Amino acid sequence: MRVQNLILSLTLVAGSMATEADLLTRARGVFKPIPLDQAELMKLIDNPKNPITPEKVDLGKKLYFDTRLSKSNLISCNTCHNLSLGGVDGVGAAIGHKWMANPHHLNSPTVYNSVFNFKQFWDGRAADLEEQAMGPIVAEPEMAATEMMVAHRIKASPEYVEEFAKVFGDEEISLTTIGKAIGAFERTLVTRAPFDEYLEGNQSALNEQETRGLKLFMDKGCITCHSGVGVGGTMFQKFPLMGKYKYENVGDFKGNENGLTKVPILRNITQTAPYLHNGAVWTLEEAVEIMAENQLGIKLSAEEVADIVAFMGSLEGEKPKIELPILPNWGPKTIRPNVN
Amino acid sequence: MRVQNLILSLTLVAGSMATEADLLTRARGVFKPIPLDQAELMKLIDNPKNPITPEKVDLGKKLYFDTRLSKSNLISCNTCHNLSLGGVDGVGAAIGHKWMANPHHLNSPTVYNSVFNFKQFWDGRAADLEEQAMGPIVAEPEMAATEMMVAHRIKASPEYVEEFAKVFGDEEISLTTIGKAIGAFERTLVTRAPFDEYLEGNQSALNEQETRGLKLFMDKGCITCHSGVGVGGTMFQKFPLMGKYKYENVGDFKGNENGLTKVPILRNITQTAPYLHNGAVWTLEEAVEIMAENQLGIKLSAEEVADIVAFMGSLEGEKPKIELPILPNWGPKTIRPNVN
Repeated sequence: MRVQNLILSLTLVAGSMATEADLLTRARGVFKPIPLDQAELMKLIDNPKNPITPEKVDLGKKLYFDTRLSKSNLISCNTCHNLSLGGVDGVGAAIGHKWMANPHHLNSPTVYNSVFNFKQFWDGRAADLEEQAMGPIVAEPEMAATEMMVAHRIKASPEYVEEFAKVFGDEEISLTTIGKAIGAFERTLVTRAPFDEYLEGNQSALNEQETRGLKLFMDKGCITCHSGVGVGGTMFQKFPLMGKYKYENVGDFKGNENGLTKVPILRNITQTAPYLHNGAVWTLEEAVEIMAENQLGIKLSAEEVADIVAFMGSLEGEKPKIELPILPNWGPKTIRPNVN
Repeated sequence: MRVQNLILSLTLVAGSMATEADLLTRARGVFKPIPLDQAELMKLIDNPKNPITPEKVDLGKKLYFDTRLSKSNLISCNTCHNLSLGGVDGVGAAIGHKWMANPHHLNSPTVYNSVFNFKQFWDGRAADLEEQAMGPIVAEPEMAATEMMVAHRIKASPEYVEEFAKVFGDEEISLTTIGKAIGAFERTLVTRAPFDEYLEGNQSALNEQETRGLKLFMDKGCITCHSGVGVGGTMFQKFPLMGKYKYENVGDFKGNENGLTKVPILRNITQTAPYLHNGAVWTLEEAVEIMAENQLGIKLSAEEVADIVAFMGSLEGEKPKIELPILPNWGPKTIRPNVN
């Protein structure tokens, strides 16, 4: 009996190990880790059309935190994509100039790991971060500036002029170069998480529940859309795909020209409530249930939801250390802020 | 002739040196430097009722940047006292919840070196930074939270609860302890400037124009009010003292119970436009002219104004390096933001 039990136990352990190794192999076919190796990382995040350099990243960081890129001098990129708070603002719909809510009731996506999105904005209308960064600066319900205004403010500051010259040489100070610098900075905002260690082969980086959650995430079909380095951000999808999304507060967002919405990345999703493109859902549990019902046509048990949410916790990554920039002084002939 | 010229030159140089040494001696009687020595500095900035500790400062830094201390989750201490921009917001009157302008049209004072104010707020109604820090959090036109709301949000976050316990032991998590932590952080926000080196004996820390400006600042009577470590912040004064302040946009601020306004500190004044308690004046030159006319009853020449402004440039100090805090996660049972 003892020997039989021992054999049974060993068989079970071996079976479990085989299953776990199998899960890792399958996961590696679907996801990719954020590499620790800097050269490997650079291959993933760099933009040949706007190469990352330390000077450009430093300038981009300043611009990212500079409220003077807004008409009022009160709103910066960091206002809605707050690096202290998971890269988001934590409200349903973005609030901008004069406290205007986003007219389409769209939720601000996290800037962390946004480099892994194949396109930017919920409707994917920007090809990359450099292009995206220009949008909110001149959008009336966001930062409400104009191209002329921001270029003028930068040009009125001798310190900024010097930094732009160092980074961009003869290229003109404009919304375009501002977007390039901010984009380069944003490309560096990647967050390695326990799940990356798992994908690299350290299976103990995920605990039992997280591992169960990963398995469910794969078996139930979530990976149809949420895959790649970002665990999402690689395609457009219809939303809702089946059934009728039950929330009233969905705004008037109609998706891209084909009515499709970009699948968001799920890294740090535990820190970026509220959820969905309309920011109408406040708990991750509810968001997972809604996605299962509306995109996969299945009903998950409470236990399954809890396991999947636990797996999502393993996507919470370490944030890069950022020294708060001390911004160049206003120039004497700058355009003054206007809060109206 | 040559010998006579030489003697004359030597006499002039010696006379000039005597005058300069005399100016330094006089300045030392009026101003005090921010000490480089940490123990000396601590004597100046610490609060025996709320001793500075590294853990408290770190917690205070988190709270200073935490937008979740506002009703909307969109406004932090740093919104109006922006550490990237001289410790101010750069607008005339502070803008708060729902884009409300400060009802008294009061300008946000800089948080840098605010520890050197003998009292806080323009009317001096707060005894110290710990008390001041609590005010805007629960002021309807500023962060619009309530005592209950902020205490609840902190208590709902296990990470915050742990940090508060480390810093405050059994003392309850409340607006009071929040104010204490923020106050401790703010006490560390001091900025040594060239003028401090000058006061320590390095007369070349100020160039010729700055030295002329210092002399004018002393001889014309500015030092009647602007003295001490902060170059101001040591007393209340009537404003305007004589003549009639000519700007219409002064709001309804009436000063303290005696109709007096706190004399602001002038450190980093080159970075904190717009000026005066109502933020109605956009250039330092104009502010200097107005103060001379309305407080001293004198008219300064354009050259004198330029020299005084140059001296003020020597008060621009080096800002402490601050690593952007990564804030504790929301707790699952937190009070959600409300932008209305």
